Amino acid sequence: MIEKTGGTRARYRVAVADLQRPVQEDLNRVQEELARFFVCDVELINTISKHMLRSHGKRFRPTLLLLVNKLGGPVSHKAILSATIVELVHTATLVHDDSIDRSFMRRGLPTVNSVWNDQTSVIMGDYLYSKAFFLLVENGLMEVVQILARATHRMSIGEMLEIEKTLDFGVGEDAYNRLIQDKTAVLISAACEIGAYLAWGEGREQRLLSDFGLNLGMAFQIMDDILDIEGDADVMGKSTGSDLRDGKITLPLIHALRSAPDGVADRIRRRMRGGDLDARAAAEIVSFTAEYGGLEYARHRARGYADRAIELLDDFEDNTLRATLRDAVEYVLDRRR
Amino acid sequence: MIEKTGGTRARYRVAVADLQRPVQEDLNRVQEELARFFVCDVELINTISKHMLRSHGKRFRPTLLLLVNKLGGPVSHKAILSATIVELVHTATLVHDDSIDRSFMRRGLPTVNSVWNDQTSVIMGDYLYSKAFFLLVENGLMEVVQILARATHRMSIGEMLEIEKTLDFGVGEDAYNRLIQDKTAVLISAACEIGAYLAWGEGREQRLLSDFGLNLGMAFQIMDDILDIEGDADVMGKSTGSDLRDGKITLPLIHALRSAPDGVADRIRRRMRGGDLDARAAAEIVSFTAEYGGLEYARHRARGYADRAIELLDDFEDNTLRATLRDAVEYVLDRRR
Repeated sequence: MIEKTGGTRARYRVAVADLQRPVQEDLNRVQEELARFFVCDVELINTISKHMLRSHGKRFRPTLLLLVNKLGGPVSHKAILSATIVELVHTATLVHDDSIDRSFMRRGLPTVNSVWNDQTSVIMGDYLYSKAFFLLVENGLMEVVQILARATHRMSIGEMLEIEKTLDFGVGEDAYNRLIQDKTAVLISAACEIGAYLAWGEGREQRLLSDFGLNLGMAFQIMDDILDIEGDADVMGKSTGSDLRDGKITLPLIHALRSAPDGVADRIRRRMRGGDLDARAAAEIVSFTAEYGGLEYARHRARGYADRAIELLDDFEDNTLRATLRDAVEYVLDRRR
Repeated sequence: MIEKTGGTRARYRVAVADLQRPVQEDLNRVQEELARFFVCDVELINTISKHMLRSHGKRFRPTLLLLVNKLGGPVSHKAILSATIVELVHTATLVHDDSIDRSFMRRGLPTVNSVWNDQTSVIMGDYLYSKAFFLLVENGLMEVVQILARATHRMSIGEMLEIEKTLDFGVGEDAYNRLIQDKTAVLISAACEIGAYLAWGEGREQRLLSDFGLNLGMAFQIMDDILDIEGDADVMGKSTGSDLRDGKITLPLIHALRSAPDGVADRIRRRMRGGDLDARAAAEIVSFTAEYGGLEYARHRARGYADRAIELLDDFEDNTLRATLRDAVEYVLDRRR
């Protein structure tokens, strides 16, 4: 679906299907592998896996891995496997996150913790993580193990930072940047790095595209913060304002808090520290964030990361794949879920 | 501490210090590496790590890895690192398990979930798991990655099986064996396999000692089941009867349920299915387990695995290390925590 948008630049709204098109057949194979990998002789694991396969995520990370891989030549079987495994890792983090955040809906379906319970979510996440590394080892993808081991380690540090900084409204933008880099950008970067490594081997392309993914990932998480404030719950398949209600640090809030007069900012901080925000209180904080330029500033920062990501593609041949990777950047800025 | 026991065979009670003696210096280095590995620039991670380092576990898995490694020659730096990393993996499972089981004490100290909360436990466990694989990769221990990736995957399957079988009192001994093999024996086996691999490389010794660890691990878990029923809470640093109260399947219970007259067994099953057992109900189930030979049978099975483990050492040179590995088997049968 291509739809004109009213942004500052005249451009078309990119849909996720537009990104998937050049690697659609490969993505179908990823979906088959996912279904195959999910099978296990433990009934409970099978039941949960079937539940999770019913929800079709955007498969954003596998799509990026495959696009990058195809930029360097025909998509290899190793790339298909790696794309599947990156999605397993991503799914593992979602299962743990939903349990931690007590989220009940994800991708329009009830979460594992809501259908089963937190205990089952913890083990299911561990199962998916360990399955990812097990499959890499079984398939001899030891270089991919290296990239993903580094990435998952930084992700867990990011998650811990997020817990540490929750309800800490003195967090500055530097700490925020580190947090979202570890929590979100590192896995998107790893997906691109793996795609590049499997196409070109070690070297310049791997570094450039890893960096492309990192910048894209930063923009992705900042847009996530913005969507939490102004997204449409029906489109997103989950409720909005949940980051604010959970006392999580988001860029729009950081900027609004530092831009507002001290008295106003202090009142908002006190309000959020109290916890248990009802819909009205959440709405008030949303207005505050908008009023003091938080959304605008965050969008500006996201655009900055996006521009840097696009720049990093300059050295590659200008073809459909590169154009689609550029579209992926625009998609991240325009996405509504 | 060597102390005479009144078992069926005249022998001495082996203390954990007796097992550690031949590799004491190496274990000290493991302890230093652990303290070093735990340091992180995220304050929350450091605080939790310091809390966890205060409790000195038995370091049973690192001890086995080092004993096996030394059986094949001088202990290598790779073996020290691997022993440390196996302990990290073990600690990760404890952190997740305690959160899942809502345990409040472990090794005589309050658990992470009781000092902090379940959310923090989930991420701390993820941090420790991913740190383990990160360190293996950083140190180029790719063969150890293979062994540990397979082991952790099976461990997560075992944990899931345990959740599935909780309150299912129709579980037979075969299902129980698979469950404890995945949940417990596989990591003990991996520790021995890694020690052997690093000493001899791939081959016969690796297989024999991996099998030694597997049998030892089976005996270890069966004794854990027995200790849950007849252990001394003060010595163990955690409460007894908790498996029974949680409706977990243990070998003494499986045997008692199949040995008791139908009416008696049914009454116990109904009682346990109801959940929320108070101290009196738990005591009644403990008596039932003893009365119908459950403890005796479980001890007999543990002895069987122990004998097989000892047999597997026959092919190795008869020296202090081999004698200590035999002692490790006796320790598992005699241990009180």
